[in-house]
Amino acid sequence: MSDQTYSVTPIGFVRSVLKIREKAPRQGYEGAPDAWLDLNPGVAEALKGIAPGEELIVLTWFHLAARDVLTVHPRGERKNPLTGVFLTRSPDRPNPIGLHRVQVLEVVGTNLRVAPLEAVDGTPIIDLKAVLAESADS
Amino acid sequence: MSDQTYSVTPIGFVRSVLKIREKAPRQGYEGAPDAWLDLNPGVAEALKGIAPGEELIVLTWFHLAARDVLTVHPRGERKNPLTGVFLTRSPDRPNPIGLHRVQVLEVVGTNLRVAPLEAVDGTPIIDLKAVLAESADS
Repeated sequence: MSDQTYSVTPIGFVRSVLKIREKAPRQGYEGAPDAWLDLNPGVAEALKGIAPGEELIVLTWFHLAARDVLTVHPRGERKNPLTGVFLTRSPDRPNPIGLHRVQVLEVVGTNLRVAPLEAVDGTPIIDLKAVLAESADS
Repeated sequence: MSDQTYSVTPIGFVRSVLKIREKAPRQGYEGAPDAWLDLNPGVAEALKGIAPGEELIVLTWFHLAARDVLTVHPRGERKNPLTGVFLTRSPDRPNPIGLHRVQVLEVVGTNLRVAPLEAVDGTPIIDLKAVLAESADS
């Protein structure tokens, strides 16, 4: 193994009514609210073409996560057997990246209102991607 | 904007017959081969439960990407109008994270053979996630 590491720089931050991780839904489709993606004006060009109605993949950095957790009881329920985090969506994992599919509702400058999003207020945003209609990972 | 950055540490590396970025398919479903995910033995516990047949999301770090690119001609074709990278799957982007949906074909220790995967040989792997059947981002 190489000891190389890479540096991730937030491209913006989530602005949400969700303030506390423990009170946030576990997945967007479990009743998460809409939220703002406040993106750095320095990446304005990279948003070229984004409009309301568009679907996007949002990658976030779970800044509150524990990076030394390798197994979890899925959904935090003790009755679920211990499972490797790579087989779950636990925010606790070695590189705590969150994956969210959202729809764009509104575009104001470099701020995008999207839904649904279960990430809490202040969560760093690290990437946005197209949904691929042809692809099963869309 | 905060100047905070985060450090990503590879959890393993792709082993593939694809050696050159320019010759790799643009998406997994465009004829990409199977490949090995050689994962660090230190994350063995995090694989607990992964078995052949399982579908997973793989996140990679496009170590050959240009991080200062904000717009591209999609698919590298000049006839496609310049588009913000956040509306594409271009590997060139501020935080060059790749998103791939694969099926597990074989598990040998902490090495997983998966398909299809368009990432080139030596690409760092930074996360694995469950596919969520209930979710549109699965």
